[in-house]
Amino acid sequence: MTDPALLAPEAPHAPSPSHRIRTLNDGGSDGWEIVYRARALRAAGEVVLDLTIGDHDRITPKLILDAMDASARGGHTGYADVPGIPALREAVAARATAQTGVPTGPENVLITAGGQAALFASFTACLDPGDTGLYIDPHYATYPGTIRAVAGVPFAIQSRAEAGFQPEREDLETAPPARALLINSPNNPTGVVYTRETMETIASFAVERNLWLISDEVYDTQVWSGAHLSPRALPDMQDRVLVVGSMSKSHVMTGSRLGWIIAEEAMIDHLADLLVTTTYGVPGYIQDAAVVALTEGERIEIEVAETYRRRKDLALGVLARSNRLSVVPPEGAMYVMVDIRATGLSGDAFADRLLDTHRIAVMPGESFGAASAGHIRIALTTSDDRLEEALGTLVTFAEALP
Amino acid sequence: MTDPALLAPEAPHAPSPSHRIRTLNDGGSDGWEIVYRARALRAAGEVVLDLTIGDHDRITPKLILDAMDASARGGHTGYADVPGIPALREAVAARATAQTGVPTGPENVLITAGGQAALFASFTACLDPGDTGLYIDPHYATYPGTIRAVAGVPFAIQSRAEAGFQPEREDLETAPPARALLINSPNNPTGVVYTRETMETIASFAVERNLWLISDEVYDTQVWSGAHLSPRALPDMQDRVLVVGSMSKSHVMTGSRLGWIIAEEAMIDHLADLLVTTTYGVPGYIQDAAVVALTEGERIEIEVAETYRRRKDLALGVLARSNRLSVVPPEGAMYVMVDIRATGLSGDAFADRLLDTHRIAVMPGESFGAASAGHIRIALTTSDDRLEEALGTLVTFAEALP
Repeated sequence: MTDPALLAPEAPHAPSPSHRIRTLNDGGSDGWEIVYRARALRAAGEVVLDLTIGDHDRITPKLILDAMDASARGGHTGYADVPGIPALREAVAARATAQTGVPTGPENVLITAGGQAALFASFTACLDPGDTGLYIDPHYATYPGTIRAVAGVPFAIQSRAEAGFQPEREDLETAPPARALLINSPNNPTGVVYTRETMETIASFAVERNLWLISDEVYDTQVWSGAHLSPRALPDMQDRVLVVGSMSKSHVMTGSRLGWIIAEEAMIDHLADLLVTTTYGVPGYIQDAAVVALTEGERIEIEVAETYRRRKDLALGVLARSNRLSVVPPEGAMYVMVDIRATGLSGDAFADRLLDTHRIAVMPGESFGAASAGHIRIALTTSDDRLEEALGTLVTFAEALP
Repeated sequence: MTDPALLAPEAPHAPSPSHRIRTLNDGGSDGWEIVYRARALRAAGEVVLDLTIGDHDRITPKLILDAMDASARGGHTGYADVPGIPALREAVAARATAQTGVPTGPENVLITAGGQAALFASFTACLDPGDTGLYIDPHYATYPGTIRAVAGVPFAIQSRAEAGFQPEREDLETAPPARALLINSPNNPTGVVYTRETMETIASFAVERNLWLISDEVYDTQVWSGAHLSPRALPDMQDRVLVVGSMSKSHVMTGSRLGWIIAEEAMIDHLADLLVTTTYGVPGYIQDAAVVALTEGERIEIEVAETYRRRKDLALGVLARSNRLSVVPPEGAMYVMVDIRATGLSGDAFADRLLDTHRIAVMPGESFGAASAGHIRIALTTSDDRLEEALGTLVTFAEALP
C-alpha cells in the first residue's frame, strides 16, 4: 500500500530570500546590543545616560523648517528632479569648489536620500557582484553590510591604534585585489582627521591598484585640529574619487535624509540613472530647505560645530583625571574614542559593566571592528552638564576597577 | 632608440564604472524623448499641453502638510526608526487587513522611501546576481532597470492587447527559469485591473515555479470597474507575496517618497536590515504626516480617486467620437490607453506628430514595452477643461491622418 504521505500534495513551499540579504550582517558588528539594552532599561523606567547616539540633542533649526514648510505649501510636493533640483546641485557644487579649490559644477553633484543612500549608490556604481570593496577598520557600522547588499565582498583594512588610526602604506598593502576603497575622514568612530601624508598615501595606493576611492566626508564641518582634506583635491584624483556628503551633521538634518555624491560628470550621469530605480529622487521641499540652509545657514553650521568643539574640550578635561584611560586625540566629528586597555577589560566588558553598575551607555570599540577593540566611543550628543557628570562617573568607575 | 612614448609615465587611468550601472538602461524604454522634447518646447516659450505626467495637478492636501509641519516643529527631525515608526506600520497594517481580510500586523510592514524604493528592496531581497526577474509587458518604465540595478536579469512576459492585457497562462509559460515575478494591478500604463481568474492563474504559476511574487499595488485606491484583488489575499500565498504600496497616488504625496512593503515577518526583518544600508529610514515627520493621512484622510483618498474617475469618463466621451481610435477599457489608475493602430502609425510616430503639429504631448505605448506598441497613454493629470480640449484636438488630428 502506498504511503499516504506520498499521495498528499506537497505543501506549497516559499522560495528562499536572496543569499545577499540573508548574509547582510555576517561577521558584522554585533556590538549594538548595548544600545538595545540601554533602550530596554529606559523602557522599564530606569534613568540611563546615553552616550551612544550619533544624533544631535536638538531639532533642525527654525530657518530650515520654515523654508521646508514654505516650499511644501508653495506647491513643491510633486516629483522633484530625480538627480536633484538644479538650485541644490548648484549650492552643493559651490560649497565643494570653495572647500577644495576643485572647480565643481552642478553636473558633478547628485542629490541622494542621505549620506547612506550616497554610499549605497557609490558601491553599486563601482562594484559588480563578487568584486571586493575595501574599507578602513575601525569603521562606521553600515560599511560591510552596504558592500554585501550590492553583492560585493567587504574587506577591512586594519588601521592601528599605535599609529593614531592613520592607515599606513603597510596596512593598505594587506588588501586583496579590489575595485573600490572607502575612507572616512573626519572619522567615525575615532574622531581622527587624516593628515595630508595619509591622504597622499591612500591616493597613490588607489592609483596603483586602479581603485575607485569613495570618500565619506559627512563630518567635514567638524574639524578641531589639522584641516579637512578631500582626496578629490589631490592632483589627478578627480576621475576616481566619489565624495559622499550630507546635511545631517552640519545642519542638524539627520532625520531629513539629505545627502549627495560629488564625482566626475559621466559617473554622476550613471548614478542619476540608478536613482530612478532606487528612490526616484528626494522630496522637493527638503531640497528647497537644504538650499536655504547652505546659502543662508552658515551661522548654523558654525554654531553646531562649536557645540561639539566645546563638549570635546569638556570631555578631554574630565577624562584627563584618569590614569587608566587614554584618549585618542579627537581632531574632528562628534565623538571621543577612549583607550581602556589599561583596565584589562575589553570594550564590550567595560561598556557592559558601566551600564550595569552606573546606567551609562557607551559604544564598545569592538562594534566598529577589530582595530578599535579595547576602546569605547563616547558621543558628544548630550548636554554639557549631563556629559560632564557622566564622564566624571565613568572616570571614577575606571579608576575603581580591580 | 626607444620610442619616447614608452618612457613617458602612463597617464593615470580611472577605473570603469560597474557593468550593471553602465547597462542599466540597455534595451529599456527610450520613448521618454517625447517628455524631454515637450519640456524643451515649453522652455522655449511654447504652450504645450502635457498629457504624459504621472503626477497630480494639485499639491498635497493641507491636512497632511499641517501634520508634517507640526511633527517637524515638535521635534521629530532626528533619525526615525529605520523599518518605520510603529504608528505608521500599524496604520498600514490595519489598512491592509481591512482591504484584504488577511490579518496583517506592524511586523508585516516595512516603510520605504517611496514605492520605487520598495520595488528596489524587494528585488534585492528576492534575487541574487544573475537570477532572472520577470515582469509583465506593458510595464512601468523603471521595472527592467530596477532588476538590472540589483544585478538581476530582466525578462518581460508579453501580455496581449487582444486579451485586454490580462496575462494568460500561455503568456506566462514563455518565461525562462526565474526567481521572482513582478505584477502591477491596477496597471500603469494600461489602466487594466486584473480579474480574479488572471490573479489565480498568476498565483498558481508562481507556486509551480516557486517564484517570489512582487505585487505593485500603488493604484489600489483608483479602481473604476471590477475590484482590486491582492494576490496576498489568495490561499497559501502570504509566504511568497511582497506587496508594494505607496501614499503617492492615493493621497497626493508623490514628492514625499513614502511607500511600503507588506510581507511575511521573516522577510520584513531581512528587508529592515537592508534599509540600514540603502536609505537608513524615512524622515520621521513625513511618516507622522502619513499616519494622519491614513487615519483621518479617507475623505482625501476618495476625493482624489473621484477626480480621476470623472476625467476617465470625460476622456471616454471625447475619444468615442473617433472612428480610428479604440480605447483599452480603463478599469483603474490615472491613465487611459488608446489603440491607434487603425491610423497606420506607430505610437512613437503618432506622439511625435501630435506634438509637432498640435503641441500636445502623450506617451507612446512603445515606451512601456513591445506589448503596447501602436498605443498611446494619456495621463488624466490635467484639469478637466484642458483635458477635454486636448483630447478633442487629438481626435480631430487622428481623423485627419491620411
